[in-house]
Amino acid sequence: MTTTEFKPTPDTSFHGPVLSFEFPGMRIGVAEYAEGPTGTTVLHFPERAKAAVDVRGGFPGTFNVDMLRMGYDTRVLDAVVISGGSIYGLEAASGVAHALKDDGYRSGDITNVGFVSGAIIFDLGDRRLNELCPDAALGAAALRNAKEGHFPLGAHGAGRMSVHGMYFGTPLHSGQGGAFRQIGQTKIAAFAVVNPVGLVVDRKGGIANGGQALPDGISTIADLLSGMPYERDDLGFVKSQTWSGGRVNPSNTTISVVVTNRKLSYASIQRLAIQVQTSMGRAIQPLATGWDGDVLFAVSTDEVDDPSVHEMEIGTIASEVMWDALLTINEPRVVEPLGHATASQVEKIDGRFIFDKGFELTIRRNSERLTLEVTGERAIFGLPSGHKLEARLEPNGRFIVEGSPMRPLRDGAFVLGDNGEIEHVVVNLGAWQQTGIQQKTTG
Amino acid sequence: MTTTEFKPTPDTSFHGPVLSFEFPGMRIGVAEYAEGPTGTTVLHFPERAKAAVDVRGGFPGTFNVDMLRMGYDTRVLDAVVISGGSIYGLEAASGVAHALKDDGYRSGDITNVGFVSGAIIFDLGDRRLNELCPDAALGAAALRNAKEGHFPLGAHGAGRMSVHGMYFGTPLHSGQGGAFRQIGQTKIAAFAVVNPVGLVVDRKGGIANGGQALPDGISTIADLLSGMPYERDDLGFVKSQTWSGGRVNPSNTTISVVVTNRKLSYASIQRLAIQVQTSMGRAIQPLATGWDGDVLFAVSTDEVDDPSVHEMEIGTIASEVMWDALLTINEPRVVEPLGHATASQVEKIDGRFIFDKGFELTIRRNSERLTLEVTGERAIFGLPSGHKLEARLEPNGRFIVEGSPMRPLRDGAFVLGDNGEIEHVVVNLGAWQQTGIQQKTTG
Amino acid sequence: MTTTEFKPTPDTSFHGPVLSFEFPGMRIGVAEYAEGPTGTTVLHFPERAKAAVDVRGGFPGTFNVDMLRMGYDTRVLDAVVISGGSIYGLEAASGVAHALKDDGYRSGDITNVGFVSGAIIFDLGDRRLNELCPDAALGAAALRNAKEGHFPLGAHGAGRMSVHGMYFGTPLHSGQGGAFRQIGQTKIAAFAVVNPVGLVVDRKGGIANGGQALPDGISTIADLLSGMPYERDDLGFVKSQTWSGGRVNPSNTTISVVVTNRKLSYASIQRLAIQVQTSMGRAIQPLATGWDGDVLFAVSTDEVDDPSVHEMEIGTIASEVMWDALLTINEPRVVEPLGHATASQVEKIDGRFIFDKGFELTIRRNSERLTLEVTGERAIFGLPSGHKLEARLEPNGRFIVEGSPMRPLRDGAFVLGDNGEIEHVVVNLGAWQQTGIQQKTTG
Amino acid sequence: MTTTEFKPTPDTSFHGPVLSFEFPGMRIGVAEYAEGPTGTTVLHFPERAKAAVDVRGGFPGTFNVDMLRMGYDTRVLDAVVISGGSIYGLEAASGVAHALKDDGYRSGDITNVGFVSGAIIFDLGDRRLNELCPDAALGAAALRNAKEGHFPLGAHGAGRMSVHGMYFGTPLHSGQGGAFRQIGQTKIAAFAVVNPVGLVVDRKGGIANGGQALPDGISTIADLLSGMPYERDDLGFVKSQTWSGGRVNPSNTTISVVVTNRKLSYASIQRLAIQVQTSMGRAIQPLATGWDGDVLFAVSTDEVDDPSVHEMEIGTIASEVMWDALLTINEPRVVEPLGHATASQVEKIDGRFIFDKGFELTIRRNSERLTLEVTGERAIFGLPSGHKLEARLEPNGRFIVEGSPMRPLRDGAFVLGDNGEIEHVVVNLGAWQQTGIQQKTTG
Repeated sequence: MTTTEFKPTPDTSFHGPVLSFEFPGMRIGVAEYAEGPTGTTVLHFPERAKAAVDVRGGFPGTFNVDMLRMGYDTRVLDAVVISGGSIYGLEAASGVAHALKDDGYRSGDITNVGFVSGAIIFDLGDRRLNELCPDAALGAAALRNAKEGHFPLGAHGAGRMSVHGMYFGTPLHSGQGGAFRQIGQTKIAAFAVVNPVGLVVDRKGGIANGGQALPDGISTIADLLSGMPYERDDLGFVKSQTWSGGRVNPSNTTISVVVTNRKLSYASIQRLAIQVQTSMGRAIQPLATGWDGDVLFAVSTDEVDDPSVHEMEIGTIASEVMWDALLTINEPRVVEPLGHATASQVEKIDGRFIFDKGFELTIRRNSERLTLEVTGERAIFGLPSGHKLEARLEPNGRFIVEGSPMRPLRDGAFVLGDNGEIEHVVVNLGAWQQTGIQQKTTG
Repeated sequence: MTTTEFKPTPDTSFHGPVLSFEFPGMRIGVAEYAEGPTGTTVLHFPERAKAAVDVRGGFPGTFNVDMLRMGYDTRVLDAVVISGGSIYGLEAASGVAHALKDDGYRSGDITNVGFVSGAIIFDLGDRRLNELCPDAALGAAALRNAKEGHFPLGAHGAGRMSVHGMYFGTPLHSGQGGAFRQIGQTKIAAFAVVNPVGLVVDRKGGIANGGQALPDGISTIADLLSGMPYERDDLGFVKSQTWSGGRVNPSNTTISVVVTNRKLSYASIQRLAIQVQTSMGRAIQPLATGWDGDVLFAVSTDEVDDPSVHEMEIGTIASEVMWDALLTINEPRVVEPLGHATASQVEKIDGRFIFDKGFELTIRRNSERLTLEVTGERAIFGLPSGHKLEARLEPNGRFIVEGSPMRPLRDGAFVLGDNGEIEHVVVNLGAWQQTGIQQKTTG
Repeated sequence: MTTTEFKPTPDTSFHGPVLSFEFPGMRIGVAEYAEGPTGTTVLHFPERAKAAVDVRGGFPGTFNVDMLRMGYDTRVLDAVVISGGSIYGLEAASGVAHALKDDGYRSGDITNVGFVSGAIIFDLGDRRLNELCPDAALGAAALRNAKEGHFPLGAHGAGRMSVHGMYFGTPLHSGQGGAFRQIGQTKIAAFAVVNPVGLVVDRKGGIANGGQALPDGISTIADLLSGMPYERDDLGFVKSQTWSGGRVNPSNTTISVVVTNRKLSYASIQRLAIQVQTSMGRAIQPLATGWDGDVLFAVSTDEVDDPSVHEMEIGTIASEVMWDALLTINEPRVVEPLGHATASQVEKIDGRFIFDKGFELTIRRNSERLTLEVTGERAIFGLPSGHKLEARLEPNGRFIVEGSPMRPLRDGAFVLGDNGEIEHVVVNLGAWQQTGIQQKTTG
Repeated sequence: MTTTEFKPTPDTSFHGPVLSFEFPGMRIGVAEYAEGPTGTTVLHFPERAKAAVDVRGGFPGTFNVDMLRMGYDTRVLDAVVISGGSIYGLEAASGVAHALKDDGYRSGDITNVGFVSGAIIFDLGDRRLNELCPDAALGAAALRNAKEGHFPLGAHGAGRMSVHGMYFGTPLHSGQGGAFRQIGQTKIAAFAVVNPVGLVVDRKGGIANGGQALPDGISTIADLLSGMPYERDDLGFVKSQTWSGGRVNPSNTTISVVVTNRKLSYASIQRLAIQVQTSMGRAIQPLATGWDGDVLFAVSTDEVDDPSVHEMEIGTIASEVMWDALLTINEPRVVEPLGHATASQVEKIDGRFIFDKGFELTIRRNSERLTLEVTGERAIFGLPSGHKLEARLEPNGRFIVEGSPMRPLRDGAFVLGDNGEIEHVVVNLGAWQQTGIQQKTTG
């Protein structure tokens, strides 16, 4: 599914929980490609803002952040753009810059160039069955749909396909989180696209799993840390993944943003970045590993002096707000009615389903049971070519793959074409579902 | 001329001087939008390369360079992409990354993500009359036309519209430069997109002007440095520009790349970057100012050990090669026959010519003389609205603006439409010419 | 008590808890000036080690750490030296370097220069009544008494006078901590001189107070964080310190070291530094503020390959070892019998006691009660000139100051001279006691 | 000659050329140990100054510079201390800090701690015959003898034993340089302790040799650069040193300081540091190699606004002032009458002369000729044990070693004791002379 062959449509609508808050001078937009899924989150500061950056992960992918290291005590930043798609997804940041110019916010004058910074997470690899990534059009769509005071929580924007916990071989879907606190006139907002190799941990040490299945006997980070050292292969995959059928690729990142309306010097904004990202070591364990690309942006809209909150408190309060934000990531996995075929509508199933080049499942039905075999060159959720799964087909047409609760491919259903024949298979039903097209010439 | 309204066509052909050399493992491509003009230069390493970066300017615009600071002693880099277009132009780097994926060089596997780094120069502002910038398509085109052993010199690729010397109020067209040296098995190549606020200086202290006019009495950098301090306005424009009619905007950058085939550790590549960029203080004066965004990439294709050249020599030799490269930038301004109308074909001239939104010249003919007046909101080459120039129309249709040899608008000509009426005006004839469209409704 | 007037004697003996462990290739020494008290801790690597540094605090005081940023993948480091005394205390690091040369470990040859890095904590200001700081002699003494496998815990070495908790106005004595873990052949040791503005927190969120008094109702970090924002004065002192009589100066630092015997590349050692210091955000809250000067050194003695522990685990395990280390800091305050005078031996008390230039207490007895008045120019534990305290003299000669359990001056006793008259007063009896000399001419 | 055995006396007098200038708010002091020789240079700002640092060499040795990277826009810096002695010499910076406290400039209060930053050069190794290094006493002596407006040029202070040119195998004595320029109210001073592996180059490309001998045919840097690549051994020594008898150890450093009285933001001071150190690539070739430890401090005493000199000019002018400073380093080698014995006074010469532990020459006379043999474990100016030199004894008692003008040991003379017998030999007569003591028991 290369960008030259297929032009997906940015989706800027969203449902589910939203953080609502009042923060004039900051607009937030998300845009997604459902076909990935993948997405982009934009924080736009129409009057520009001061900003600093703190890079702590071992695999960062950043866009135009060096200027934020120059120590300038001025408002230069137009927008922070966070995207999925690894390095490919940096293009969304550029799309935001171009849109700022095309829409008249900025121009080509030296004092008025659209100043966009950004960073990406890795949401490809074994976790989805295509390589669609955010591009300039997606970034522009996110900017053009931005508005004040709304931040969609969970599997939205750049967090559309994010996970946490791969360090322990326990990938859980996460998403993006946000929180806000106002004390006196001082506003502090924190946002994060949460895709760490580690796990998000609540204030009592519990794993923030949002109702997703965990391995038996595991409910706190202490349970998992006590299991160290884990046996791993060369690439760092945990070998003893009894709860998972496939290799889990530890390649992740948390991108976070803390925003305040307080007037702060550059040095203070830089300090805010450092203190808050250090504090995140509490809420994400482990953090800042070589398999993360963690980046935090600290931003001041530079609006109020507020002696009622000493500057010394801001970093510490912001750290708490960030922890609150990290705990809003989880969205229960929703299996919506999607017009799937019932079991009786699809009497015969025997076909090759292509998700993207090289990603192929062959599915055969035998009475109420299905066999799914990886028949392409590329692994399916880490399951190598030749790997077979057994599933049970239910009367409503949904098939359930057998195995541990953390199995990478859990369920699916079929979609019929106009001619009443199977056109697609959809696996892992819900927010993160993947669609494969049946090959016609399987005569 | 917004990107949503107008899709220009990448031009990957080029004429003029070329550096030819043998360096297996490195492919070079350029692509340009003549309508800017602006462009992109790609260095592609199909087998990947080790790399480090050294940022020294005060206004850098970088793409995905933080990974090059992690100290990894491995080959990670696929391509360096340099572009015009200020921050907007960073999109070209992303276009290269996407093309690497779409063309099968790279994929979405964590160990195989297309790793592109890049940086931009500022080539907008007062120096051209539109805001067209490199985008993803231009980057992809440059990659797809890359080949080994050819580097076009002068006004090509990212150097298509670059200048030097604005620090002194003496902007000269520059371009991109390259040089190569092989000693034993050790290959060293240096490339630079040369757009510094300072001036390029040769080994005898002379200004590298490539035949372009300099102010009277000025031929060496010493002549100019002895004139300090210059009187400037708030934005840093030199006030006493007797040789220039308009304000010259000091906003620039030099992006350079040094490449060797020697096996070097990360620390040695980082050192190479630092030593070579420091040495460039000789060849560009001043360098690394707050008005530059200088970035140097040092790259090793990691191929040969060569005891005949001690590692200690590499940085010093590379510094000489870089100076050689910087001295190849200048291309004589060529005024080609372009099918302009002759004086007799355009008896009456009285119209408004729009170059891009807000960039407007009104031109009237009075016998053999023309009056050009800036009538749009935006300045024309720094000449503010209301400014008038006088020109002389020659029989061949070319008009010559009166004034100092360094006047920002020097000459022009008219192009007729099919109906025999004036359709366009072209000013500053040659490689950097700008085209304005006559407005029909000037009744 | 300037260094030119008074030459204190390094004390390299110590009592109390010790971490014992096996780690060939690392020698540890401490040396202290009891008169401060203040001290120095040396980690010496006789065969040199690879190292990297991670600076995160806003007020760092470092010695020769830039070389550790050059990316060299070689063993260069001879010793890490941590000291009290703020910037003045950096001299101890230099004393170690000189001792390495004088003792024949190193010389003046370029390949054999003694390579010492170091950092300091702030242990002056309101917390003691003199300005004695570590110097070259103290560093040399620490080195010359170093041995393998012993690390004194608590108020020793550079942690001799360290505190934590000033952020909340709750200063608790801390000290230095250490921990060790071996898995297979992989050894990981962690050490820290713990002087953060924040508080050390255990794995259940409790404050690591080692039996020291806390304000009523405060036992967890959550109790204190919920009190934010605190009202503070311009310098950041918490105003509402009902539990403390004086201003508490928030100026602190945590210096930590993680050492492994695993062969690691420079990039991996740098990563270890970053991951472990980030993880410390769990155990010290808040951490990396503008009032801290946090520095972490990561060191590899570069001895073993050990496939049984994947490199990916090292940072995470080391983070747990560091947390263990941080929890060993607290030493109960011990009031030893010190030959103080009994109440009956000091019938009349009426004198000025000088601790150091400007630090003066005037003490008068009235029956079983004492009045202590700050009569010098400088504050006594933050109590300004003119401040009076009331104390009760017990029969054994110890006087107890009245007030909250967190009062900065708690108790004291008097020491007689040969003539049977009072010569000194000792306040805050125990490890951190301060000695004032009675002025003779109070006739 | 260990510091525990021998306490040399700081020498704060000096003769020779001095830069005199007016710069209130900056005091300069030098102190030297003639026995090294080695020394320290202090720039003291009694009212404190803003500062930033730029580290560019591959082997930096720095003292307390991390705080200068925090971006604070305040006056924190008390003094910059530059010393010889490699890492050992960093102790002088600490001595300055202690002296600031002991002398009442600063104290132990958190807002008043003596803030000293510093860096060192390498002046040990093959270039002198002892390992005496600057220490705390030397730093204090330099501070206490500091005064305004005088900077001694040449072989003084930290530049007492500095050289340049080892990169090419052509070591020339250099020293420290300084220059000053005032335009309107704007003062700019530049200082450098010049010990680069490269050579100082004048504005016409000539080698700044101050009258010292150069190899035949070599007078410009171009002459030497055209000889690349040089054949080197593993440590980087140039093998083809026809003009030198011994190995020349390429281990060097340039430490520089630029000071202005202009009020500048932190970002502008950082920029000043970067621009000026980049510009030094002109005056020192090569610069910033892996064998240098280059550090530049930029300092603002933060006193005047001066619209007559645009801020954009300061870095460029300062770069010129720095080049001027670099060209003041050379001091002609002076051979003073030193009370040497005449040839007739030392009829018999046959003894072992010890310069420092392991540094030993055995000298025998045969009529008017002397044989000098390296008989200790350590090399003498790079000449290995067993190496013999021939010299001619002149009637005035000076002996001249035969060989090329760049021979490392050139001449010498003998000093008699009270008993009329030879007590010392002095070699390389003049500013950089080395003294060996005759061993008594050469029976």
